[in-house]
Amino acid sequence: MKTAIEELEEKGKAAKAASRRLAYLSTEVKNKALANIADDLLARKGKILAANEIDCKEAEASGMNEAMLDRLLLNTSRLEDIAHDVLAVAALPDPVGEVFDMRTLPNGLLLGRKRVPFGVIGAIYESRPNVTIDISVLCLKSGNAVILRGGKEAINSNSALAGVVQEAATRAGVPEGAVQFVDNTDRALINHLLKMSSTIDLIIPRGGAGLIKLINENAAMPVISGGIGVCHTYVDQSADVAKAVAIAFNAKVQRPSVCNALDTLLVHADIAQSYLPLVATEWAKAGVEMHCDERALSTLKPSSSLKLVPATDEDWGKEFLSLVAAVKVVDSLDEALEHIERYGSGADEAIVTEDYSAAMRFLNEVDAACVYVNASTRFTDGGQFGLGAEVAISTQKMHARGPIGLQELTTYKWIIFGSGQVRP
Amino acid sequence: MKTAIEELEEKGKAAKAASRRLAYLSTEVKNKALANIADDLLARKGKILAANEIDCKEAEASGMNEAMLDRLLLNTSRLEDIAHDVLAVAALPDPVGEVFDMRTLPNGLLLGRKRVPFGVIGAIYESRPNVTIDISVLCLKSGNAVILRGGKEAINSNSALAGVVQEAATRAGVPEGAVQFVDNTDRALINHLLKMSSTIDLIIPRGGAGLIKLINENAAMPVISGGIGVCHTYVDQSADVAKAVAIAFNAKVQRPSVCNALDTLLVHADIAQSYLPLVATEWAKAGVEMHCDERALSTLKPSSSLKLVPATDEDWGKEFLSLVAAVKVVDSLDEALEHIERYGSGADEAIVTEDYSAAMRFLNEVDAACVYVNASTRFTDGGQFGLGAEVAISTQKMHARGPIGLQELTTYKWIIFGSGQVRP
Repeated sequence: MKTAIEELEEKGKAAKAASRRLAYLSTEVKNKALANIADDLLARKGKILAANEIDCKEAEASGMNEAMLDRLLLNTSRLEDIAHDVLAVAALPDPVGEVFDMRTLPNGLLLGRKRVPFGVIGAIYESRPNVTIDISVLCLKSGNAVILRGGKEAINSNSALAGVVQEAATRAGVPEGAVQFVDNTDRALINHLLKMSSTIDLIIPRGGAGLIKLINENAAMPVISGGIGVCHTYVDQSADVAKAVAIAFNAKVQRPSVCNALDTLLVHADIAQSYLPLVATEWAKAGVEMHCDERALSTLKPSSSLKLVPATDEDWGKEFLSLVAAVKVVDSLDEALEHIERYGSGADEAIVTEDYSAAMRFLNEVDAACVYVNASTRFTDGGQFGLGAEVAISTQKMHARGPIGLQELTTYKWIIFGSGQVRP
Repeated sequence: MKTAIEELEEKGKAAKAASRRLAYLSTEVKNKALANIADDLLARKGKILAANEIDCKEAEASGMNEAMLDRLLLNTSRLEDIAHDVLAVAALPDPVGEVFDMRTLPNGLLLGRKRVPFGVIGAIYESRPNVTIDISVLCLKSGNAVILRGGKEAINSNSALAGVVQEAATRAGVPEGAVQFVDNTDRALINHLLKMSSTIDLIIPRGGAGLIKLINENAAMPVISGGIGVCHTYVDQSADVAKAVAIAFNAKVQRPSVCNALDTLLVHADIAQSYLPLVATEWAKAGVEMHCDERALSTLKPSSSLKLVPATDEDWGKEFLSLVAAVKVVDSLDEALEHIERYGSGADEAIVTEDYSAAMRFLNEVDAACVYVNASTRFTDGGQFGLGAEVAISTQKMHARGPIGLQELTTYKWIIFGSGQVRP
């Protein structure tokens, strides 16, 4: 009998073998695979939902909290949404095969860069079973084979979904082995997976800080990962107050548990009197707790509805992931830029201003994956950016920054057409 | 007194501080800095050559071999060449500030990607002092601050050259601190440098396999590195024999010690009889030793001029870096592709053929940084590719593949112009 490690090695080899053909598979076949997946998600929903029910019951029995249980749950409406997203990816342009920077050199060599897949992508993720579909579909469309290793709590759902993907893809003509599913959730296997650099070209982790740290520290192959998102919104002295209230409200409240939600609100002293009470009132309606520096605190009148707490040093540069915001009054754009430089994590930063030069300085000088003028940082998302979907959001500078969509799952090779040239 | 580690930390902080201004410094100032460097290399050649003389004398006394001594040597003509290369980089377009993928979303958000520098690049290199200038100039032009750590044997030359760069750049208006030189060549300091991920955004090693391995295994920040280059040239049955002789000769002989030189010659059985004796005769004139498989050996008549050795298993996939080539006869393009897939290192691969479909299959199916039809693999080079110059040649797939020129020293950030948008 094979050991779990031998099985994992075999999956790696099978994915590598499939990736060679997948690299130049026609867009037609890849899109057909995606259409089949969308169909089968609904046609086989009985099997999928039954598997999901097992996961949900076990999770409930183990005492998983409501929010996590909700993330785990699949139902017909959610499957329809997932199928809809799959078709949206099918409708996107195929990134593979694009040729760019093509030119003829003085010696007659015609050379350029051709966009090609990475090869085999290892995806290690937690919790939500829809990630199995999202990642499979983005990898297939971008010509990559994929090895899926989802979380233990969703093992039955993930296994059923991966089965759907494998069958649907093969039926369309995708080489067998292109989508591998690791059905053994023994944590020790992750360590082995991270050493399989001869078969896995790139690892993409999607999950909490612990998972990402484990992978960054142990992977023998390249990794694209998101880190924490400590996001600032700076309300400039010239801000349109109504826009600034709506943007800060949306950035903090629309989905507080995610990395592009607002963490710190920086407010110019000249607008603090008129702006802070308004945003505080709106935030209070949603239950936001404000950790205020002294000046912000003195601007806000304590009332029974406001949750005001004096800020401590730990509040600056903290990712709250909840209905908490740090609030600081600054004297200038420069002070705001310095604060962001010191405490930001290079994810998503915004300025609210009607001052053209302030906007342009902010765009130029802030070093982050996504820099916004007069919009909510919550837009950082592959779907919202028009990239279709995303495997993850990168806060690293190398290769891909921000949402990792189809193009970010590719690399390039130089292709050179000669007629006998030799180097002098 | 400061310790060496404290000094290194300070250099890191100074570079980081400079990198913020450097990121949006005008092309004009950066080009002026490059022009100053080119001028000063000649204006201060007395000082540079005196420093180089100390290095050369010490190296000679320590028993360094001729080839290495030659790599270390600077003279007026070499300084003129270096200055010429600096001006060539000045003449290249500035990669920083390019905006691409810009579009307006249905909600009115205008978004796109803007090319920006990495920040601070740590360059760790060996031997040739001109690398100090090459890397400084590419980093400055691409808006990056740089920390230079050259080899011990060139310490005086590198120090003099770095001094020239620093003075010339500052005179042009480049922020002080943009070019840092580590004058302490204690090897232990490299280990500390590799942990300075808060100030160094990217490490680029340039040197032998030992150095690259050390850095890949120990760097806490991203690395772009070249690895070994096991390069194949496949002579197809339909090859133009004269072109195939010239290409294989050039690829093996023009500079055998580098990573893009030919290592294995694959020859289709149908052309082996007519081709192999011709290439063997040419190679023999240059002293090339051929490690032949049985069929290649039986095709070549032993003669006093040919150095023929039966190939062993170790010859396939070996980077010779000398006047040795492995030679194998194959029965088909498929067999050649399989051999390259198995033994290639993803660097530079070539086919010589007059058959259109064979050429296209080779371009499509070979997974390497640079794939050639009817040309010598020796062209893989930033200068030859029209990129001006290169910091190194990457054999990794992530971020940059092949020559690392100006554009490859940049990343991008998303810039988003809103008018109050919030996420629904």
